[in-house]
Amino acid sequence: MEKEIIVSGVDKEMKIALEKYEEPKDIKRVLSGMRPTGKIHLGNYFGALKAWIELQDRAESFFFIADWHAITTSYHDTGELAENTVQMMADWLACGLDPEKSTLFVQSWIKEHAELHLLLSMITPVRWLERNPTYKEMMENLKDRELATYGFLGYPVLQTADIVLYNADTVPVGIDQIPHLELSREIARRFNRFFGELFVEPRPYLSKAPKLPGLDGRKMSKSYGNCIYLSDSEEEVNKKVMSMVTDPARVRKTDPGHPEVCSVYAYHKIFTPKERVAEIEEACRNGEIGCVQCKRELAKNLNAFLEPIRSKRAELLSNRKALMEVFKEGSERARKVAAATMERVREAVNFLRQP
Amino acid sequence: MEKEIIVSGVDKEMKIALEKYEEPKDIKRVLSGMRPTGKIHLGNYFGALKAWIELQDRAESFFFIADWHAITTSYHDTGELAENTVQMMADWLACGLDPEKSTLFVQSWIKEHAELHLLLSMITPVRWLERNPTYKEMMENLKDRELATYGFLGYPVLQTADIVLYNADTVPVGIDQIPHLELSREIARRFNRFFGELFVEPRPYLSKAPKLPGLDGRKMSKSYGNCIYLSDSEEEVNKKVMSMVTDPARVRKTDPGHPEVCSVYAYHKIFTPKERVAEIEEACRNGEIGCVQCKRELAKNLNAFLEPIRSKRAELLSNRKALMEVFKEGSERARKVAAATMERVREAVNFLRQP
Ligand code: SF4
Ligand code: SF4
Repeated sequence: MEKEIIVSGVDKEMKIALEKYEEPKDIKRVLSGMRPTGKIHLGNYFGALKAWIELQDRAESFFFIADWHAITTSYHDTGELAENTVQMMADWLACGLDPEKSTLFVQSWIKEHAELHLLLSMITPVRWLERNPTYKEMMENLKDRELATYGFLGYPVLQTADIVLYNADTVPVGIDQIPHLELSREIARRFNRFFGELFVEPRPYLSKAPKLPGLDGRKMSKSYGNCIYLSDSEEEVNKKVMSMVTDPARVRKTDPGHPEVCSVYAYHKIFTPKERVAEIEEACRNGEIGCVQCKRELAKNLNAFLEPIRSKRAELLSNRKALMEVFKEGSERARKVAAATMERVREAVNFLRQP
Repeated sequence: MEKEIIVSGVDKEMKIALEKYEEPKDIKRVLSGMRPTGKIHLGNYFGALKAWIELQDRAESFFFIADWHAITTSYHDTGELAENTVQMMADWLACGLDPEKSTLFVQSWIKEHAELHLLLSMITPVRWLERNPTYKEMMENLKDRELATYGFLGYPVLQTADIVLYNADTVPVGIDQIPHLELSREIARRFNRFFGELFVEPRPYLSKAPKLPGLDGRKMSKSYGNCIYLSDSEEEVNKKVMSMVTDPARVRKTDPGHPEVCSVYAYHKIFTPKERVAEIEEACRNGEIGCVQCKRELAKNLNAFLEPIRSKRAELLSNRKALMEVFKEGSERARKVAAATMERVREAVNFLRQP
């Protein structure tokens, strides 16, 4: 499942959500996860990873590779799962997630996620899940009928387990994930009502990062084939930038342009120094700069941004054992927290304790 | 949830099921579980436990206390869960389940059940679960609306995990459980289709034991308050037998009776020597025996049957530590099998292996 399924239909809720959830000030513990469905692209970076990297300096942070969640939507095709997980490890560390600051782990290595998921499933009304916009949308979409699995319906239950297992108070999410997080809050509340105040109700932390369009101007998404990946070589980046859509009004260099409708310009605003961006804008409007030249400049700046990540990435992947060791250590740290939570949970639910 | 929810509406399927599933001849591995919702009564004993005790001599056997399943239907009231689990341990051993012959364990002590449940949830279509008669019936029953939880809907998914985790080929079940087992077969088949032939499709082993009515002539069930428990004292048994309903046509001792409509007679057929049963039948039909006398005789025989179980039970409960140790050892044995299965499963699904 690509994000589109989730995104559509909730944009009207964005304003409401942003009003409802101001940025939390007293963040104690942050948790978020990412599905290893492929290499990380710039959309993932600016949509999530960048915020995580900032947050790891502000609060105790847990970030996990959500391989269980990856199965939810691609159970029929898991051939790349293990490799995608390793690639994501490299992407994360190369971008600046720091195992000294954050607890980085792999979801499936910690059975407590499955255990708490099972328990939460017992108290979660089916109708709460059925009214989940993502699920409703999918149900209306006949061609995705095969996705109407029990696990897909229960996606928010597993997500709740992920969060409350670590008693995270703050969850960095995209706006499209707000309904899921609302559901997590409700499930946590319901559990607390039955078994005592064990769980914190998690709050969303909304990324205010600029949206980076894909090469074709649409949302950047693997399924559209319009992505720039952190792992793309210099040549690939050059080629991709040259293929980007620009203002369609510009046929000749001297045609006056409209930077606000141009993807290249959206990129310049992020990867090019401010003063230079202003110059480009003016030159474009006045028909004083060609799109090819404008793109070359972007490609150069983009490569300058990507180069350190790219080489760090390659270095990390040259020693996979060490890379996996980082996540093994993180997972052991995470497991301790998860096990302690489950200890309290089993006690509260009154399971017979194993001697 | 008492069994009634499950039972009604499937009686017509009984004949079909019995025709479809002949008794398996080449039983290799048996698995079954029981929810610890209270002490075991004679209905449980003759409906399940008796067959288990016979099966443990015929095949490798796994029997578990299904504490996860107990939560499914009584998440709002788990105060007795731990104690019920211990009581069930005592009931099982007192009746003759033998830890030397069977692997006896507690479901929640083995996290692999939750883990496989999560994985199977990903491949199980929601509509398979929605057409489950138990679920449909509950959905039509408005007062049980609170039971419409995600976990209740997924009950057969957890049950499938329980079974295939041990690759059991044979599952002793009541006739009412046939639809669930059919579903387990389908889920196992679907998993095999996606990930290779990992699981055996389990077959039902239908108990042909006589149905023992409750004190009031209805099905014996905790919720009807019409049970005789294995733990009932001699006095309690006497009192309960005296309160049993008999043939309503018999007002005076000399009224001719109809043993076939009398619960007491149904009991005699099980607890009284054959020749004596024939005598009682004739005496009843001829109005030559009073119901009180007839009941006293039953109470005596019933107590003779229960006495060794009762005293063994008390003895076992006088050393709870040793009792739990038996299930701890069994659980360790079960865990090895479960862990080996999950190893193969994670490999097949292609999760990144923890170093
Ligand atoms: S000159 Fe640059 S900003 Fe203007 S339309 Fe072309 S690529 Fe876009
Ligand atoms: S005499 Fe015995 S069998 Fe006959 S009706 Fe009375 S209790 Fe039942």
